[in-house]
Amino acid sequence: MTIVLYYSPGSCSLAPHIVLNEIGEPFELRKFATAELANYSAEYLAVNPKGRVPALATDRGILTETTAMLVFIEQTFPQARLAPLADPFRFAQAQAFNSYLCATLHVAHSHRMRGARWANEAASFADMQRKVPESVAECFGLIEKRMLAGPWVMGEAYTICDPYLFTMAQWMEADGVDPARFPKVRDHRQRMSERPQVRAAIAEELN
Amino acid sequence: MTIVLYYSPGSCSLAPHIVLNEIGEPFELRKFATAELANYSAEYLAVNPKGRVPALATDRGILTETTAMLVFIEQTFPQARLAPLADPFRFAQAQAFNSYLCATLHVAHSHRMRGARWANEAASFADMQRKVPESVAECFGLIEKRMLAGPWVMGEAYTICDPYLFTMAQWMEADGVDPARFPKVRDHRQRMSERPQVRAAIAEELN
Repeated sequence: MTIVLYYSPGSCSLAPHIVLNEIGEPFELRKFATAELANYSAEYLAVNPKGRVPALATDRGILTETTAMLVFIEQTFPQARLAPLADPFRFAQAQAFNSYLCATLHVAHSHRMRGARWANEAASFADMQRKVPESVAECFGLIEKRMLAGPWVMGEAYTICDPYLFTMAQWMEADGVDPARFPKVRDHRQRMSERPQVRAAIAEELN
Repeated sequence: MTIVLYYSPGSCSLAPHIVLNEIGEPFELRKFATAELANYSAEYLAVNPKGRVPALATDRGILTETTAMLVFIEQTFPQARLAPLADPFRFAQAQAFNSYLCATLHVAHSHRMRGARWANEAASFADMQRKVPESVAECFGLIEKRMLAGPWVMGEAYTICDPYLFTMAQWMEADGVDPARFPKVRDHRQRMSERPQVRAAIAEELN
């Protein structure tokens, strides 16, 4: 299986990047910096008509959507045991965690700089930006109290949920949220940042 | 397996409701009308601390998040063959479709009446409401052109993606989007509305 990951530095593409590093099979990285408008070329839109990252090129075609991609990587390389696929309830819990990150936490965060997706006026964008510290903190509050079992998201087993949570926890300071308010999330972030595969992914994205 | 679906009429809980009807195993419905503030009781928040629908009570605990729940129902009752679980790429395509509905289309739609999640000012809510016809139509445009294979979302096989698309297509008129602009989506909606399991789900939610 030839795999190419299209990523943008600092974006949620870091999650599949870390998971691919954990798997240890060869893959190729291609940068598509979403901040640079010149990148919204016909070439990239042919890869992903949504104009977003991540996108994953595989032998069978392109995949988009982080949550789908994380499960695909795990199912393709099951030896790494990064998701409890054989247990429908546990697998659903892992998927629900990732879905919450994708559809609630990431969406709250995106109102800081992507307001034009949902409104037109500068005053609305400013209002949205003021709300981000509160709406993002509310998500981390729920994760802290109800969702993060510890030491990893699902408990003793490290899964595809961990790199995804780590990726979004990296945005806390920029979103105006004090990590000290969420000690379990902070400790998880620290634990993640010590993994060689995570350090390697971050270093690779800085190149 | 004893299954209880917590639903709110007209919400995205219609998708797992239809899938449960398609499976044909007994389950219980419990109404939690999200429009009624009195329903945000300690009792319901104990079921789902997010205060959202759907929630699914199972023998092993509560599950939330529509996309996770749809796969759980399919994995628990695989005889209905409602997702290509054994084929990682096809499964990822189905999951990516559902993720797009959950994290992009549903989010665009929610800006019509849930603006307080992401802003504080009445003027921002009005601005968001004006944008909904455009942002929701953009999603349906992508679904129409690139994602809906036909006759069903994934092609010849009816899957968990179909009730989910149908549920959101039901919101088009209220979102200010003319269904005639998207003939494949419109035909899919018609095809869905002719299924006895879909008619039954809609009738059950009106009780």
